[in-house]
Amino acid sequence: MEIKQVCILGAGTLGSRIAFQAALSGYWVKVYDIKEESFTISQKMISKIAKGLIASELYTQLAIDEAFTRLSYTLNDEEAVAEADIISESVTEDLALKQQVWTRMGQIAPEKTIFTTNTSYLLPSSLASFTGRPSRFCAFHFHDVFYSKIVDIMPHPGTDAKVIKILQDFGQKLKQVPVVLKKENHGYIFNAMLLSFLGAAGKLLVNEVATIEDIDKSWMVNFHVPMGPFAILDSIGLDTAWHVTHQLPDANSKAFAALLKTYVDAGKLGEKSGEGFYRY
Amino acid sequence: MEIKQVCILGAGTLGSRIAFQAALSGYWVKVYDIKEESFTISQKMISKIAKGLIASELYTQLAIDEAFTRLSYTLNDEEAVAEADIISESVTEDLALKQQVWTRMGQIAPEKTIFTTNTSYLLPSSLASFTGRPSRFCAFHFHDVFYSKIVDIMPHPGTDAKVIKILQDFGQKLKQVPVVLKKENHGYIFNAMLLSFLGAAGKLLVNEVATIEDIDKSWMVNFHVPMGPFAILDSIGLDTAWHVTHQLPDANSKAFAALLKTYVDAGKLGEKSGEGFYRY
Repeated sequence: MEIKQVCILGAGTLGSRIAFQAALSGYWVKVYDIKEESFTISQKMISKIAKGLIASELYTQLAIDEAFTRLSYTLNDEEAVAEADIISESVTEDLALKQQVWTRMGQIAPEKTIFTTNTSYLLPSSLASFTGRPSRFCAFHFHDVFYSKIVDIMPHPGTDAKVIKILQDFGQKLKQVPVVLKKENHGYIFNAMLLSFLGAAGKLLVNEVATIEDIDKSWMVNFHVPMGPFAILDSIGLDTAWHVTHQLPDANSKAFAALLKTYVDAGKLGEKSGEGFYRY
Repeated sequence: MEIKQVCILGAGTLGSRIAFQAALSGYWVKVYDIKEESFTISQKMISKIAKGLIASELYTQLAIDEAFTRLSYTLNDEEAVAEADIISESVTEDLALKQQVWTRMGQIAPEKTIFTTNTSYLLPSSLASFTGRPSRFCAFHFHDVFYSKIVDIMPHPGTDAKVIKILQDFGQKLKQVPVVLKKENHGYIFNAMLLSFLGAAGKLLVNEVATIEDIDKSWMVNFHVPMGPFAILDSIGLDTAWHVTHQLPDANSKAFAALLKTYVDAGKLGEKSGEGFYRY
């Protein structure tokens, strides 16, 4: 099957970015959300990205303008999915909500539609059966779309192999590097490594082995990269980092979560609040 | 005190690199080893580095030639340390051997000499008392000298604070970024993070979550870096990676060590043998 029409569920940060890249890649895109105000925010976000893409000469003004003609927003979910060859769902990371959304999609989407979730932490097997057509369901997880151009394809045991193949092709058309998981794994591939690395940095800090700056320097100078673990945590957001870390069972994670909580409680959420481990 | 004369114990890979950088930085350097043939190997290694430094216009031929005049080799340890303001010890990573070397240095080195070990895995407190002057003893740990320009300063509880300050200055003169550990820690700062990150990659592979290539891609594309965890392991050497991993107590490390062992047993040691996880 050929994908032409794309339905995005949720006009948040990632939903908007996926929608825009899909429109840039030549697809017709409908973005559904329950709140009209989220469309204004989404449009502003996309306009900003568009300016950056033109400034860095990745796309012409003409290509951007054409992409906008292929992108529309709707508060009507039936309209959003009526023609959809594929759905990419980026609604709030809440299991019950996602199950409800996928139950509804199973009722109203055409038979041809491929169902994908952009969930960060849930497993597709926790959602697949709610669709009524689990073989068409797969996790299709973006990182940032425009900077970190990688997409995880994580099937559940009942996903049709043809769906995986279609998603690999679709991922490439969206200018992402597709990677395929051979089995379900919390945190996909990258996050599993990132969490271990950041956790080790947190352990060094909690155990007072070295300063934030010296831990970051050790990583940056060795790997010739612009950010160390604490700068990365600031960019992720210390509230998000706390949310993930405090759920981990080991003592080191608990201790690091407690430290992160002191920053969050002080309103130091990282880059977005102007201060975290560093000031911005 | 001002450092002018440097004594390097052990003319192996790191000893030679530290010696050459010290000579390039204007210090008079004496390199001691028990085997004369190691001097020939060391000189070849340094000549190769020198060519690279000239090619990349980091040093002139004149500066290199001058550095060579400040660098000498000796099989006589008393001659090596007679004038030394500082000793940097890079002998084989063996506790008993290092204890023996430091006992000897305590007997023959001048009173002024600062004692440093470049150990990768041992703690300075396991060596300090053998010197007879533990307050002058500190770990001073290089990574690669010319590519990863960072040096760990890891005191033991009895190290004099003045020694730490001198080592910070000396590290900068050697064009390294000095980082100071507030307490002893196995693997210093960087290795603790690196081990966690590589271990998480190993866990993904052992649990058959994804292929070697897809795990590497996930890291490389997200962080815009040229190597993923398995390429890094190939560059470290799979024998070294096995040696470290098989000593770790947890089940995931044991499983990954068992996998690494199959590569080592097949002669696949990584880049240096022409094949590891990848072919070279």
